[in-house]
Amino acid sequence: MKKWIPIATGLLAGFMTAAISFADFSNHSNTVAANSDTKSNAEKVYVPFGQKDEYYLFASGGHSGQMFIYGVPSMREIRTIPVFSPDPATGYGFDSESKKMLGGYTWGDLHHPALSETNGDYNGKFMFATDVGNSRAAVVDLKTFTTKDIIKIPNTSGPHCAAFVTQNTEYMFLPTRFATPLGQKYEPLDQYSKKYRGVMSAVTFDEKKEKLHIAYQVALPPWSYDLSDAGKKSSGDWAVMTTYNTEEATSTLEINASQADRDYIVLFNWKQLAQMVKDGKYENVGGQKMIFPEKEKGAIYLIPVAKSPHGVDVTPDGKRFIAAGKLAPTMTVFSFAKAFKAIENKDFAGERNGIPVLQYKSVMEREVNPENALGPLHTQFDDKGMAYTTMFISSEIVKWNPNTGETLDRVPVQYSPGHSVAAEGDTVAPDGKYLVALNKLSKDSYLSVGPSHPESMQLIDLSGKKMKVIQSVPANPEPHYAQMIKADKIKTINVYPKDPNNPDAVYKQKDTRIVRKGNEVHVYGIAMRSRFIFDHSAKRPDSVEVNQGDKVFFHLTNIDFDEDITHGFAINNYNLNMEVQPGQTNTIEFTADKAGTYPIYCTNFCSALHQEMTGYLLVKPK
Amino acid sequence: MKKWIPIATGLLAGFMTAAISFADFSNHSNTVAANSDTKSNAEKVYVPFGQKDEYYLFASGGHSGQMFIYGVPSMREIRTIPVFSPDPATGYGFDSESKKMLGGYTWGDLHHPALSETNGDYNGKFMFATDVGNSRAAVVDLKTFTTKDIIKIPNTSGPHCAAFVTQNTEYMFLPTRFATPLGQKYEPLDQYSKKYRGVMSAVTFDEKKEKLHIAYQVALPPWSYDLSDAGKKSSGDWAVMTTYNTEEATSTLEINASQADRDYIVLFNWKQLAQMVKDGKYENVGGQKMIFPEKEKGAIYLIPVAKSPHGVDVTPDGKRFIAAGKLAPTMTVFSFAKAFKAIENKDFAGERNGIPVLQYKSVMEREVNPENALGPLHTQFDDKGMAYTTMFISSEIVKWNPNTGETLDRVPVQYSPGHSVAAEGDTVAPDGKYLVALNKLSKDSYLSVGPSHPESMQLIDLSGKKMKVIQSVPANPEPHYAQMIKADKIKTINVYPKDPNNPDAVYKQKDTRIVRKGNEVHVYGIAMRSRFIFDHSAKRPDSVEVNQGDKVFFHLTNIDFDEDITHGFAINNYNLNMEVQPGQTNTIEFTADKAGTYPIYCTNFCSALHQEMTGYLLVKPK
Repeated sequence: MKKWIPIATGLLAGFMTAAISFADFSNHSNTVAANSDTKSNAEKVYVPFGQKDEYYLFASGGHSGQMFIYGVPSMREIRTIPVFSPDPATGYGFDSESKKMLGGYTWGDLHHPALSETNGDYNGKFMFATDVGNSRAAVVDLKTFTTKDIIKIPNTSGPHCAAFVTQNTEYMFLPTRFATPLGQKYEPLDQYSKKYRGVMSAVTFDEKKEKLHIAYQVALPPWSYDLSDAGKKSSGDWAVMTTYNTEEATSTLEINASQADRDYIVLFNWKQLAQMVKDGKYENVGGQKMIFPEKEKGAIYLIPVAKSPHGVDVTPDGKRFIAAGKLAPTMTVFSFAKAFKAIENKDFAGERNGIPVLQYKSVMEREVNPENALGPLHTQFDDKGMAYTTMFISSEIVKWNPNTGETLDRVPVQYSPGHSVAAEGDTVAPDGKYLVALNKLSKDSYLSVGPSHPESMQLIDLSGKKMKVIQSVPANPEPHYAQMIKADKIKTINVYPKDPNNPDAVYKQKDTRIVRKGNEVHVYGIAMRSRFIFDHSAKRPDSVEVNQGDKVFFHLTNIDFDEDITHGFAINNYNLNMEVQPGQTNTIEFTADKAGTYPIYCTNFCSALHQEMTGYLLVKPK
Repeated sequence: MKKWIPIATGLLAGFMTAAISFADFSNHSNTVAANSDTKSNAEKVYVPFGQKDEYYLFASGGHSGQMFIYGVPSMREIRTIPVFSPDPATGYGFDSESKKMLGGYTWGDLHHPALSETNGDYNGKFMFATDVGNSRAAVVDLKTFTTKDIIKIPNTSGPHCAAFVTQNTEYMFLPTRFATPLGQKYEPLDQYSKKYRGVMSAVTFDEKKEKLHIAYQVALPPWSYDLSDAGKKSSGDWAVMTTYNTEEATSTLEINASQADRDYIVLFNWKQLAQMVKDGKYENVGGQKMIFPEKEKGAIYLIPVAKSPHGVDVTPDGKRFIAAGKLAPTMTVFSFAKAFKAIENKDFAGERNGIPVLQYKSVMEREVNPENALGPLHTQFDDKGMAYTTMFISSEIVKWNPNTGETLDRVPVQYSPGHSVAAEGDTVAPDGKYLVALNKLSKDSYLSVGPSHPESMQLIDLSGKKMKVIQSVPANPEPHYAQMIKADKIKTINVYPKDPNNPDAVYKQKDTRIVRKGNEVHVYGIAMRSRFIFDHSAKRPDSVEVNQGDKVFFHLTNIDFDEDITHGFAINNYNLNMEVQPGQTNTIEFTADKAGTYPIYCTNFCSALHQEMTGYLLVKPK
C-alpha cells in the first residue's frame, strides 16, 4: 500500500497511525452493535421470496459503459441496462434503432448517474449518465429501463464531472476531466496553458420527445474538473464543482498536479449563464454557443480548497457544500450564504485565468478533522442532515455533523471506498436507513477469480446508534457512483402497448408479409409462443429466401402481450441477435453477403416449445 | 400460461390438476421445514465478511455470450468472464490477442459449460463452452479465469447439444441443434431429408498449449440434437444425447416436430469412433474427417424415448441414464448394461436413417411418473445417488430414487425451471448439500425493471429431510446450465509472473521506449501506481506523438506485482480501452486516422492518485 502516495510521505506516517487505531475501532463497533441489535445482519439483508426490495440502486458501470441495477437491502443485481456499449444479450447495438444511437462506438465509460428531479427530490422518471471514454451523454427511461437518447458532446474530452441535474431537471451539466484544445485539434503540449481548455456543457432534456440537447458550453481554464453538485432551495440557481491540476501540469500529474497547496471549487450561477446566452454573450465554436468566462463576468467564481479535491456535495438544506483534498485529513464545510455575500461585496483575492477568486476564509465555515481519517472523497447525507464521508486511504466511512463538525461514528469498509450512496442521500429529503460504500478494491473478500478482482459494495445499516456493515457483495467493473431511490417512485410498464402509427408493426398473422423493393427485402413478421411467422401465406411461414447481396430488414413484433414473455431473434453464423419485448416491434437490418442456409432461432426461453421456435434464412448464391 | 402448449390439450388438463395439488404441496413443505430446521434461510445463505463461499457456480450466460461466476450459498455474482462476445470493461475483444481470438464476432450464445474432469470428477483446471449463435467452442483457464482459445467449428450450425467432456477430458463433443446442408451450402428446404445433416464434432484439448482441435466429425441425420452426457466408469467409453424433430419437419416445428410419439436417444461409443478415424473410415468434408454412420456401422445406436426430450443424464455410478419427453409427465430410466446386451444380441427394431434402433423395452428399466408433475427437462444427482428433475411446466423440482422410481420430495420453484445444478451434481461423486434451479421466468419475483425481466436462480438446501428453497436471485440473460464446484479445487494465480520471453514486456522504467518502423509506431510502456511511462527519456514520459495515418501499437506492462492492482488504458474519443492485470503485458493496436489531441487515462481505479494517471496521444495532421 506504501506505493500509493509516493509524494506524500507525511501522509504515509498518518496512514500507519490510522491503520492501528482503525483495528481497535473495528472491534469496538462490532461489540456495540452485537449488544444493541437483536436482528442479525443476515436477517436484515434477506428479502424472502414474495417480498421485494425497498430501494433501487442505480450503479454506474464505469468502463463497462453500462448501468447496473440492484435491490436494497438484498444487494441482488436485478439487471444491466446497456447504455454506452453494445449488449449482445438484449441486442442493444444490433437492432437498427440502438445501433444508430450508439453510432459505431463499441465502448463507453459510464460515470456518475443522475436521476431526474422535481423540487430537488427524485421523481423516478429518468436517469442521466455521461461517458468519459467517448464524450457522450445519455438518458434512460425508467418506465422501460431502456436508453432513449445518446448525444455526442463536441469540443469536450471526458465529461467525468457529471452528470448532475438542477433541482427541477432544467439542466444537466457536463464539465470535463481532461483539457484539450477546443475541438480536440492538434496543439503541442507546450501550448497547454494558452491553447487547451476544460469545457462545461449545459444540456437540456425534452421529456416529451425524450431528446437531449446542448444549450451552451463554457470554456473553463485548462484544469481537470472532477465532481460536481447542483445547489438546492436557496442555492438552487447555483452549482459547484471541484478542480485539480490547476498547476496546469502536462505530464506525470501524480506528482506535478499535486504541487500547489490549494486547488479550487468552481461556483457558478446557471441562470446568469442562461441569461448571457440569451444576451448573445458567447462565441460560436464548432456549432456550439461558447461562453468565455474571462470575457463574460458575473456568473462564475473560484473558491480555494485543499489540493486535489474529489467530491463536492451540497447539504440537503442547500445551505452548505462540503469538499476536501483527497490526500488530506480534513473535510471543509463552505457556506453558500457566505459565498453570496462575498460575491456581493466583491471580497476577492484577485483573479485566476480571468475568473474572480473568493477569499477562502470568507466562504469557509468550518474545517473538520476526524482523528487519523485520511483521504476524504465524497459525502452523502441522512434524514437528520448528518454527513457520511468516504475515506479512501484509511478505508472507512466517517459520520459527522456538518452543523458542528463533531465526529459521530466511524466504520471500516473493505477496501478503499470511492463514493458512497445513501438512500436518496443527495436530495433535499434523504431517507437515512442505508448507505452503500462503493469500494475500489476487494482483495481477499471473495472467492478468487484470478488476477483481476471484482470491485465491492458494502451495505451499511444507518438505523441503529452505530453504523454497521451488514452485507458485502462483489460488483462488476466499476461502480463509481450510484443513486438509491425508494422503489415505489418508479412506475414501469410490463408490456409495450400496441402502436397503430408504427409502419413496421404487425399484430395479426394475416398481416405478416415479405415485401421486395429492388435489392431490399422487408420482412414484416411476428414472434409468438412458440413460432415465427414471416409470411402467413407461404408454404413455410417461418423461412425467408433472399438473394446474395440483398439488403434484408426483419421488422419483428412480439404479439405475446404477457408479462415476461420476451422473444429473441438470432441468425446462426450471421453474427446477429436482437430482442423483442412483449408488445414491442424491433428491426434488424443486414446485407446477406454470405450465400447458404442459416437457421433462425429464438434466443430468449419463452415456453416449453422454445427450442422449436426456429426457421431458416436461405441466401441464394449470385 | 394456457398458450404454452397449444398442441397438447390432454397435457393442459393435467397441468390444471398439477397447479392445484402443487399449492397444497407447497404449504405442506413449508410446515415441515419450519418444524425441522432451526437455522433461518437468511442465516443459511449469509456469508459474513471474512468468510468465503463454499462453491463456485459457473453459469452459462446464454445470448450474452459470456460466463457468470457466482458464490454458493451466498448467490453473489463475483465476476463475468467474457468468452464469445467483446467485453468493454476488461478490454476483451479490444486488445490484440483477444480481438484476434474473437475473429470479428460481436455476439455469441453460450450454452452448457463443462468443467474439465479426471476420472469423472471435476479437476478445477479448465472450463469449456460452446456458442450456439456462431458455432464456436472455447476454453477458459481457471488459474486466471480468462478465455485462452476459441475455435470456429466448420460444417455445423449451433452446437447446442454441448459441451460435455468424457471422464478424463479426452474429448468434448459438440452435436448441433440445427440441421443444415454440410458446410451450410444453399439447398432448398424441399431437399431437407436428403441434403441436410446434424453434425457432431469431437474436439480435443492440448492442456500444455491451451489449444482446442477438431479430431473428427460425424454426419448425423437431419434432426435437432438437444442435450447430452458422457458415460462414467463402466459406461465411460460411451455417451448419450437427445434428439427432437426426428419427423424432419421443415417449418413450424412447434407443431410439426411434435407429431411422432417417440424421438430417440443417440448412444455412441467414442473409442470406436476414434478407431474408425484411425482406420480411415471417414470422408474429407471441408477439411474435416467426417464419419457417415449409415456407411460405417458399429459405433452409433438409437433408443426410442418419449417425444421431444430435452436433457439426458447419466447417474453418478455410470449404470443408468435418464431422459424424458419435455411435454410428458414421465421420466424414463434406461440401463447401459441392458443397452450393451441388446447391442451384443443385435436386438434391433430395424434402422432409422441407416442407424440401428434398439428396442425401447430392451433398454428401458423403469418409467417414473410423479403425480401431476409435468415437463421434466433435466436431472441432477446428490451424494446418495438420488435424482432431482426440473419440471418446466409444473414449475417444481422432484426428488426421486432412480433405483426404485419412488418419489421422495417435491418443491415449487418460481418460475419454469430449465436446468438445475447440484453441487458437483453431474460427476461420479456429487456432494449433495445444494441444488440451484435455473428458472426461465421471474415474473413478479423482483423489483420491476420494465417489460424485459431477469431470469431467476433459486438455491435449494438439500441437507434437511425436505428440500427447501432458501434464496432467490435475479440473473442476467440467460443461465441455461451451470456447474457447481467445491471452491478449494480451483487454484488461481493472483499476479502474472514476469515473462522473460515476451518481447513486448517491459519491467524497468529505463527500458520503456518508442520505436518507429516506417509508419508503424511501437510503444513499449509500463503502467504503475499512478502513472504511465511510455518513454522514460522523453520530456513528457506519458505522452506519445504520432503522425496521422500511423499504425500505433501500445505494448503495456503492469509492473505493480500486487494483488488486485489492475490498470486500464483508454484513449479518449478513440473508442479504445484495455486492461492490464498485475504483472500482465497487453497490446492494443489501431490506426491513428483522426488528427488531434487525445487524452490517455487509466480506467481501473488503482490508487488515491488514479485520476492523475493520464497522458496524451497527439496525432499530427497530414
